Amino acid sequence: MIILKLGGSVITHKEEDTPTVNHENLKRISREIRESSIQKLIIVHGAGSFGHPYAKKYAIGDEIKDSEDLKRKIRGFSLTHHAVNELNSIICEYLRMQGIPAMPLQPSSFILTQNKRIQSADIRLIKKYLDMEFIPVLYGDVVLDTEPIKMAVLSGDQITTYLARKLKPERVILATDVDGIYDKNPKKYPDALLLEIVTSKEEIETEETTVDVTGGMGGKVNELLDLLELGIESEIINANQKNNLKKVLNGEKVTGTTIKKRNYK
Amino acid sequence: MIILKLGGSVITHKEEDTPTVNHENLKRISREIRESSIQKLIIVHGAGSFGHPYAKKYAIGDEIKDSEDLKRKIRGFSLTHHAVNELNSIICEYLRMQGIPAMPLQPSSFILTQNKRIQSADIRLIKKYLDMEFIPVLYGDVVLDTEPIKMAVLSGDQITTYLARKLKPERVILATDVDGIYDKNPKKYPDALLLEIVTSKEEIETEETTVDVTGGMGGKVNELLDLLELGIESEIINANQKNNLKKVLNGEKVTGTTIKKRNYK
Repeated sequence: MIILKLGGSVITHKEEDTPTVNHENLKRISREIRESSIQKLIIVHGAGSFGHPYAKKYAIGDEIKDSEDLKRKIRGFSLTHHAVNELNSIICEYLRMQGIPAMPLQPSSFILTQNKRIQSADIRLIKKYLDMEFIPVLYGDVVLDTEPIKMAVLSGDQITTYLARKLKPERVILATDVDGIYDKNPKKYPDALLLEIVTSKEEIETEETTVDVTGGMGGKVNELLDLLELGIESEIINANQKNNLKKVLNGEKVTGTTIKKRNYK
Repeated sequence: MIILKLGGSVITHKEEDTPTVNHENLKRISREIRESSIQKLIIVHGAGSFGHPYAKKYAIGDEIKDSEDLKRKIRGFSLTHHAVNELNSIICEYLRMQGIPAMPLQPSSFILTQNKRIQSADIRLIKKYLDMEFIPVLYGDVVLDTEPIKMAVLSGDQITTYLARKLKPERVILATDVDGIYDKNPKKYPDALLLEIVTSKEEIETEETTVDVTGGMGGKVNELLDLLELGIESEIINANQKNNLKKVLNGEKVTGTTIKKRNYK
């Protein structure tokens, strides 16, 4: 079983202020999944331009100032969920058009966070859907939180690593719009090198310009390195490149960063 | 707290073969809910023309004949869910337009049935949403089943009575397209009388023409009578009549059938 995270920047036009689907990518990506040899798969997708503008506008996850602010945030929570659910519906339709039995599972209906980290989630149903050869499709969503913030934004990344810990997939694949992890910010340094393999936190942290500051990739890598300690390897690939996703689902090598144990052979 | 069931025949054009929303009713009903004095409310809605054609076509809940049939049913399950989720999104949008903080909760992501009856459902999150003054909105959906049928259609009615048992609302309201329960089939017998109060199963079962055969109302009544034994009263009203829903939410008397204990005063 593989857990595939589809980044919000791949499936939506993330730079847009209003929800905008990347139909071209979605069509191609759905076809690549269908054409691959993968049988058991969980898909988690980001919210991209469907989630971020709302979550930001209503400051979901920030401290609640007063009862007026709470009311406003509750409204924003409802609107944010509506938008990400809409994106999820569109994605599942693309998958279904390829004959993939996509089954959406709404995170906000069964996941609770504590200070923005998943506290509880009953994943027995996800397992059941998988056993029946559905393709469960989860997504970045807003969820209730046990702390005074009461509400939190739950990223697709966090769902991915949570599910990986619980379900022990063979691999985790992060389909993004970049080639992988670089030793420096490639936008700033033309001589930045793509790290084909990352085996430990030290490799990342010793770099002067960590990927943390170059678009949030650092946080992802740290979570993937935590997974590696549980024996779960992961790959970061550029899904904007045609057939990259199909190949990596098939176990073929593509340009990207693999997070794996060092091979001492 | 009140649990309000919106019948599929009220919010959709149920006679249609293809999903068709009753926009006029939805707009009016949303306004009536907003104009009422109700604070804590759970809404459960039926699937109407969004669910039944698919569920029927793919015979979800019927015996699975072979692996081909299973594949077909899995596809049908995914399609049926997509359709009811779409209806739910539309309903929640109408509610939000009235300023009602509707929060959809996907039954198929946290409810499991055993031979078509709810076996397990974690309702802690529903309680949390209620406590925060969201209006949780659930709906008739397809769900996984533990028996060899593997998949089942879960009606909004069953969700309603399940939640009522667990959450002990003050009242349960069934908003339908008929005035209530009659002593005979009103379509067949012009002298049929509306039963304003039903207090026991005997009252229904002694009738020659039970409502069971006149459109599934009998099954509903039996479930509501079971709730009455737990002390939960319920009302069946005609939500096609303007202001009926608003009045009944406010505790006013409208034409309809009340399922309540006999008053010996």
